[in-house]
Amino acid sequence: MTSLLIRGGTVVNADRAFVADVLTQDGKIVAVGENLSAPVGATVVDAGGQYVMPGGIDPHTHMQLPFMGTTTMDDFFTGTAAGMAGGTTTIIDFVIPNPQQPLLEAYQTWRGWADKSASDYSFHVAITWWDETVKRDMGTLVQQEGVNSFKHFMAYKNAIMCDDETLVNSFKRALELGAMPTVHAENGELVYLLQAEVAKMGISGPEGHPLSRPPMVEAEAANRAIAIADVLGVPIYVVHVSCMEAADAIARARARGQRVYGEVLAGHLVLDDSVYRHPDFATAAAHVMSPPFRPVGHQEALWRGLQSGNLHTTATDHCTFCAAQKAAGKDNFAKIPNGTGGVEERLAVLWDAGVNTGRLTPSEFVAITSANTAKLFNIYPQKGSVSVGADADLVIWDPAGTKTLSAKTQHSKGDFNIFEGRTVRGIPSHTVSQGELVFVQGDLRAVQGKGRYIKRPAFSPNFAAAALRAEALKPTAVTR
Amino acid sequence: MTSLLIRGGTVVNADRAFVADVLTQDGKIVAVGENLSAPVGATVVDAGGQYVMPGGIDPHTHMQLPFMGTTTMDDFFTGTAAGMAGGTTTIIDFVIPNPQQPLLEAYQTWRGWADKSASDYSFHVAITWWDETVKRDMGTLVQQEGVNSFKHFMAYKNAIMCDDETLVNSFKRALELGAMPTVHAENGELVYLLQAEVAKMGISGPEGHPLSRPPMVEAEAANRAIAIADVLGVPIYVVHVSCMEAADAIARARARGQRVYGEVLAGHLVLDDSVYRHPDFATAAAHVMSPPFRPVGHQEALWRGLQSGNLHTTATDHCTFCAAQKAAGKDNFAKIPNGTGGVEERLAVLWDAGVNTGRLTPSEFVAITSANTAKLFNIYPQKGSVSVGADADLVIWDPAGTKTLSAKTQHSKGDFNIFEGRTVRGIPSHTVSQGELVFVQGDLRAVQGKGRYIKRPAFSPNFAAAALRAEALKPTAVTR
Amino acid sequence: MTSLLIRGGTVVNADRAFVADVLTQDGKIVAVGENLSAPVGATVVDAGGQYVMPGGIDPHTHMQLPFMGTTTMDDFFTGTAAGMAGGTTTIIDFVIPNPQQPLLEAYQTWRGWADKSASDYSFHVAITWWDETVKRDMGTLVQQEGVNSFKHFMAYKNAIMCDDETLVNSFKRALELGAMPTVHAENGELVYLLQAEVAKMGISGPEGHPLSRPPMVEAEAANRAIAIADVLGVPIYVVHVSCMEAADAIARARARGQRVYGEVLAGHLVLDDSVYRHPDFATAAAHVMSPPFRPVGHQEALWRGLQSGNLHTTATDHCTFCAAQKAAGKDNFAKIPNGTGGVEERLAVLWDAGVNTGRLTPSEFVAITSANTAKLFNIYPQKGSVSVGADADLVIWDPAGTKTLSAKTQHSKGDFNIFEGRTVRGIPSHTVSQGELVFVQGDLRAVQGKGRYIKRPAFSPNFAAAALRAEALKPTAVTR
Amino acid sequence: MTSLLIRGGTVVNADRAFVADVLTQDGKIVAVGENLSAPVGATVVDAGGQYVMPGGIDPHTHMQLPFMGTTTMDDFFTGTAAGMAGGTTTIIDFVIPNPQQPLLEAYQTWRGWADKSASDYSFHVAITWWDETVKRDMGTLVQQEGVNSFKHFMAYKNAIMCDDETLVNSFKRALELGAMPTVHAENGELVYLLQAEVAKMGISGPEGHPLSRPPMVEAEAANRAIAIADVLGVPIYVVHVSCMEAADAIARARARGQRVYGEVLAGHLVLDDSVYRHPDFATAAAHVMSPPFRPVGHQEALWRGLQSGNLHTTATDHCTFCAAQKAAGKDNFAKIPNGTGGVEERLAVLWDAGVNTGRLTPSEFVAITSANTAKLFNIYPQKGSVSVGADADLVIWDPAGTKTLSAKTQHSKGDFNIFEGRTVRGIPSHTVSQGELVFVQGDLRAVQGKGRYIKRPAFSPNFAAAALRAEALKPTAVTR
Ligand SMILES: [Zn+2]
Ligand SMILES: [Zn+2]
Ligand SMILES: [Zn+2]
Ligand SMILES: [Zn+2]
Ligand SMILES: [Zn+2]
Ligand SMILES: [Zn+2]
Ligand SMILES: [Zn+2]
Ligand SMILES: [Zn+2]
Repeated sequence: MTSLLIRGGTVVNADRAFVADVLTQDGKIVAVGENLSAPVGATVVDAGGQYVMPGGIDPHTHMQLPFMGTTTMDDFFTGTAAGMAGGTTTIIDFVIPNPQQPLLEAYQTWRGWADKSASDYSFHVAITWWDETVKRDMGTLVQQEGVNSFKHFMAYKNAIMCDDETLVNSFKRALELGAMPTVHAENGELVYLLQAEVAKMGISGPEGHPLSRPPMVEAEAANRAIAIADVLGVPIYVVHVSCMEAADAIARARARGQRVYGEVLAGHLVLDDSVYRHPDFATAAAHVMSPPFRPVGHQEALWRGLQSGNLHTTATDHCTFCAAQKAAGKDNFAKIPNGTGGVEERLAVLWDAGVNTGRLTPSEFVAITSANTAKLFNIYPQKGSVSVGADADLVIWDPAGTKTLSAKTQHSKGDFNIFEGRTVRGIPSHTVSQGELVFVQGDLRAVQGKGRYIKRPAFSPNFAAAALRAEALKPTAVTR
Repeated sequence: MTSLLIRGGTVVNADRAFVADVLTQDGKIVAVGENLSAPVGATVVDAGGQYVMPGGIDPHTHMQLPFMGTTTMDDFFTGTAAGMAGGTTTIIDFVIPNPQQPLLEAYQTWRGWADKSASDYSFHVAITWWDETVKRDMGTLVQQEGVNSFKHFMAYKNAIMCDDETLVNSFKRALELGAMPTVHAENGELVYLLQAEVAKMGISGPEGHPLSRPPMVEAEAANRAIAIADVLGVPIYVVHVSCMEAADAIARARARGQRVYGEVLAGHLVLDDSVYRHPDFATAAAHVMSPPFRPVGHQEALWRGLQSGNLHTTATDHCTFCAAQKAAGKDNFAKIPNGTGGVEERLAVLWDAGVNTGRLTPSEFVAITSANTAKLFNIYPQKGSVSVGADADLVIWDPAGTKTLSAKTQHSKGDFNIFEGRTVRGIPSHTVSQGELVFVQGDLRAVQGKGRYIKRPAFSPNFAAAALRAEALKPTAVTR
Repeated sequence: MTSLLIRGGTVVNADRAFVADVLTQDGKIVAVGENLSAPVGATVVDAGGQYVMPGGIDPHTHMQLPFMGTTTMDDFFTGTAAGMAGGTTTIIDFVIPNPQQPLLEAYQTWRGWADKSASDYSFHVAITWWDETVKRDMGTLVQQEGVNSFKHFMAYKNAIMCDDETLVNSFKRALELGAMPTVHAENGELVYLLQAEVAKMGISGPEGHPLSRPPMVEAEAANRAIAIADVLGVPIYVVHVSCMEAADAIARARARGQRVYGEVLAGHLVLDDSVYRHPDFATAAAHVMSPPFRPVGHQEALWRGLQSGNLHTTATDHCTFCAAQKAAGKDNFAKIPNGTGGVEERLAVLWDAGVNTGRLTPSEFVAITSANTAKLFNIYPQKGSVSVGADADLVIWDPAGTKTLSAKTQHSKGDFNIFEGRTVRGIPSHTVSQGELVFVQGDLRAVQGKGRYIKRPAFSPNFAAAALRAEALKPTAVTR
Repeated sequence: MTSLLIRGGTVVNADRAFVADVLTQDGKIVAVGENLSAPVGATVVDAGGQYVMPGGIDPHTHMQLPFMGTTTMDDFFTGTAAGMAGGTTTIIDFVIPNPQQPLLEAYQTWRGWADKSASDYSFHVAITWWDETVKRDMGTLVQQEGVNSFKHFMAYKNAIMCDDETLVNSFKRALELGAMPTVHAENGELVYLLQAEVAKMGISGPEGHPLSRPPMVEAEAANRAIAIADVLGVPIYVVHVSCMEAADAIARARARGQRVYGEVLAGHLVLDDSVYRHPDFATAAAHVMSPPFRPVGHQEALWRGLQSGNLHTTATDHCTFCAAQKAAGKDNFAKIPNGTGGVEERLAVLWDAGVNTGRLTPSEFVAITSANTAKLFNIYPQKGSVSVGADADLVIWDPAGTKTLSAKTQHSKGDFNIFEGRTVRGIPSHTVSQGELVFVQGDLRAVQGKGRYIKRPAFSPNFAAAALRAEALKPTAVTR
């Protein structure tokens, strides 16, 4: 029976912050209060002057993503370990079936890869094609495997792109199952055209990447997915909102009372599209991801989305291709594998740029780094809360600690750091996963295979409300 | 040499109103000024106390529309004659090729049907499918036949619906040709699903029609078409904007500086969706058109769009199916042929509800009933202007005259009037087409075949601006 | 030592709902968990099939309000008792000094009146004039008396209206003190003019009331107060937001990242302005309050504000003048004393119209009826939370219980009920105040003088963030 | 009898552009058409390859403005002459009575100063105080002196600032008189506070100027004035809209159908607030005007306002204080006299940044540089139109001509040019005023005293619509 007592810190939950000790036992929080006494054999950590917060949840990562015969640099072990070094104790990764591949087959494949995870993890499953077996397998995944969210790519024509027919079918099925549809929102038809048009202009370098995916391409898709969800009466979650126009689409829908949620990546909040014009190909290519980093001004809009409550969660889309892999697009930006890292840096970047600047209170920080994700994906308060009964996944946060982020010192196996050279104030001193100290003052103690698969139950409270709303608005026939 | 002198009226153009006589000769206006003297043999009309305005242009009609082996009640003669009885002297109708039908073949068919028109007319051509011959024929139509606008149906799945790929291809081609893309904006995939869902709820009557096409279905499509146009840099015109959400999509785009234009139907401005719950099937079915009439509140939003300059033109979508034809959907609202009339009533309804209420000045009335359409479709000032050199298409408007609109007294061959029983103040006393008095105090003198096909030149001023804008924003490659 | 065990209910907090027993002791919650055992002597209540929620907080009441030598019908005892009958266990009332009256004098007067309260209570203090003593007394109130919010009336010219100079001075002072400025947002200059103009049109009845205070009058003032707060960097709370334009002003500011909060009254959510055209003067006059009930359409906008998180709290502005008092304005609507009741009905009306219709989840209901108010006015989690350590102020909610609201059966001493005849589903079965059952299945056991004055500490978390934000944006001088 | 024939140019009006010759006689345009023949003695100008447009109207200048015993550098002669060198042939300046000074006295003073004008001119009159004589004198000015617009300063506390009471009274009076209220929109109370606050921070240089007048200070006032106008039902014109938030306030009101108009200064469209941080005091101070130049991003928003039709006119607020005068604020930015030049550069800057970039068509350029102003202030088509009967005030525009703007080469007597060093493509080759060539290929032939005072009639078409709207919305009393 392992026990950990964290003494003298300020506990920060999404609803409030207060001074209290935190006691864990066997991987669960068993007490939160003042002057707790340490059980025999308990490890005691002094958190004086520090914050004790729920460990971060990164709802958007791609560890060990297969790509043309290779995979990304971080596998589920190194990736989740890097997360823990940054205070993140849970990830939600993606199962992405090939078109025509049975969902359950792909799901089992990913589950196998994830066995080596150091931290807890879960999976969204992508719907990349449609037939009756897909519909059936969605049910199996929800009811037996604890999957409560399905991802839809609106881009990547001729590959995994969903057309409107599939979106409509899948969203409808998700509503029946009490699972949240999510979308990668970019109009794939426009991207396809623009890639060709940009190439015709003689632009083959990474600077062509953002030109082929301008903000309106994202905003259109976000608006469309939201409209479909509205018509069907299903909640919806938009991943990696990167531009003000997409954020506005969400805000507009919310202002109509719709249950729409938006995720923002740490990178989109602090980087702009000048990175793509870097004279060094490798540097520019290292930033290629979709949606791309945006012109100056969009970052502010995303912050405001988080501040106003129109955007809800933060993630990284952690997906680490190395320079050699990125070089596949040396002569054609469209062939540069998409992806950047960040699972390790997210919390510190958000604290420094968000809390230190007064944009966010510490409680709002917790909301957007763990609690909101846990609520939306229905694992709250098991995750995302420092309270009795919750999993003992915690980060002890030193608001005075500083660090300069760099590929040289990162734990991720990627060879690049999009936050290179940024000095942040506010860093984890300790990370606790399942009640164990897995990161202590720079010392990472990740254990391969220690992480557990987290089942997420269907029918979060949004769905009961959706059902009542549908009932209330139910139309009637005219008797003639 | 025929000559007409209109004396003592207040000439109203889109830019101003002023007292002047108007003299026409051989179908053209040859003088506008005070105290003009009548040439020998001229007909003289006293317009004292009346307004002399450009004849109305209805940019959206479907005369003689084929439908399952029959056609609408109004052919090009009766339809244009009805228009003239209401002060409308030009229509722009639609050529709608079947999928796989050559564009030029369909065009010639419609041209043949239109020979009997009483007033001048022109044609938008619909793009209902795509291949290289369609692309080529668009060029022929623009360059040889005076077509400068192409219509795209985003609804009507498994029939004439365009998917995004066709929209993108066609919009791009239109830009090259200097022609305006236009869209019927409804998400066909959602309509398809909702028709089935509504039927499943046991709703088979006309009240199911608006349930299967809610505002968000229209707003989504409008937003999508506008986004595609924005990305391509082509102006765009949205036909029959019926709801506030679609009007907002246009206003948002305009606020970004985009050249987007919106058309409103007279019916959408004054009727609401309660018509579909009329206990009489025939009455309810007679109102079935798409987009449907909307809940109370949307009408006000459309008026505001016209008042603010975010919406630009007014039309009718005149398409008169009779009760027997509508009965095809007796047991299934989705089978009721879509269409309502109005070409004859549009001006009076707009004057009464728009000018008499202070929403619009007389000049703004001219802008939205003729001048804006003429400018957008590049036939200004030949049409849409009372000025020297313009076509002598005029309406003399009696602001004190009143009339009660009714199917019983209408000139249209349709058997229904959606404005039945509405008394309007402000009606035409005379209509002049090609310099001839074709309507005089209730006496309609339409002549079959007198109307001319109006060629519309490509490259309205919007296109030169679009080209300069593209040049100004042209991206460059990074030298590496 | 009194103890109460509530067994088998579903505990609803703002962040989640879960099945648990709740145990209170000596007025505090001491345990929340499954299968709690009852201490000796404890009262046990079976809450099976019911919700256990924090008692409602009504942040806007006027009990015992003096008016021309009389006072409103409800004093602090009857008013708070009525609240408890409806599940509300805390009110925040208003101290309203006369211009030139020392703040502390007025404060002591109101404190004296409130001694008889049955439930807990607190006070906002209005700033109705300005000089150095007012500034000083604000400090005393905050630092010694637990006042952390100051109210500003932007209407009521020649009486308690604040001009911009006072708003600026007071908001600035509030920021220094860590206290929240709040505003009654109506442009008093416009109201003054319109009252005269409406009278000139020959309209003297209650229907003149909404004509003299149209939505734009409120929206202007809301926008102005928000702009002043933005420039000064102070959070702001807008009381009784009644129209879409004011709600939009709040949403716009929030979208810019500003910390702005809006309160909605239960009445504004479900009633429209047709009440003022009631043929019976007494009925119409009974609805006179400011801002007035609004045209149809605004109610929906307010609901959407609550649903989207752009509006935050619900209240009643409970202020019960009787028919005889209302008759003072028999010949002049401007003299009808302003005020309506509702403290007893708020929760049930909101549950029925909000939760039963799927607009709100039960947790969202708790957020807008107690938790958000407690957070904003810094008494969370003492109030607004079912958690260990919180005050034992609870309501046990029977979602299946129904009731028809009526003046005949209400506990308030007012003689009118603006919700008359409305049947609601979802009513309190028990109310618990300070650990005592004060309302049990229709039996009200309110005790005069049992309520306590609740001090509210300054510097809620918003203020630390505001200080950091100001620091981050601090301008610098140019060295020349 | 003087006559001028302009041959072979492209005539540009707000509604269209077309190739035509223009013939003027005795100061009026007498013919516009192809192949006009030159009367005997006519001067003939070849405009081949050039545009022939209405001379610019600058609706916002301050020539010869008195300031602490001195005046601005440009008097009415040098200022209007500079305008003509840039293609501007009419200005509307401001009569600004001191508080308590009779309006007519101030008016006569300004009229006397303006006698020496080289071009035509007119006057807005400011309402800086209120009593019955002011109300009466507004009537005299409108009915006898051809003043149809009144200006209100919402800033400049303790000087010429209007409070809400004066705004309400004056707007109401303007409505009766058929005159347009206009506002300088800045909340004077906030400016007053911020000037003190910025000084307290130790910032005394010109960089303090924009800090004391942030965008929200302008947006608040614009929104307030618009709300008052809305409530009263009077059209309103907002001068020098400088920021996106104020532009949004206008767009919002227009979207509600309100008749609101916005003016933008050339400087605000192309300059940003970095100018205030120039290390040279004189340079920074030379840019001090109110509202100040804004952060990057606002310029784009203003362009979009012009493009979308939400903003309507362009001006300069030409007001040229020299370096010695600006030095009055050497130690206190609040004492730097406010003002910048531009009357000469406006057209070229707008053409280059607006038309060459595809933002505006040539016709839209004419709309925002002359026609819209002429319409709004009811002197159209006398001004703002190339048409028979209009004043022969023209500019012949060479789209290929280039020029580098500079204080060294400007005709204004100011010693600074805010556009210094900017090279523009598109410049006037000739300016025609009253039918005379007053500027020919760089040769300025302005004649002192040649300009005429232009009376502007009351009751532009907006006012008839406003009256009908008020009638349509007129409330009724309830009979009880
Ligand atoms: Zn993605
Ligand atoms: Zn991803
Ligand atoms: Zn259509
Ligand atoms: Zn149609
Ligand atoms: Zn109030
Ligand atoms: Zn109140
Ligand atoms: Zn000014
Ligand atoms: Zn000025």
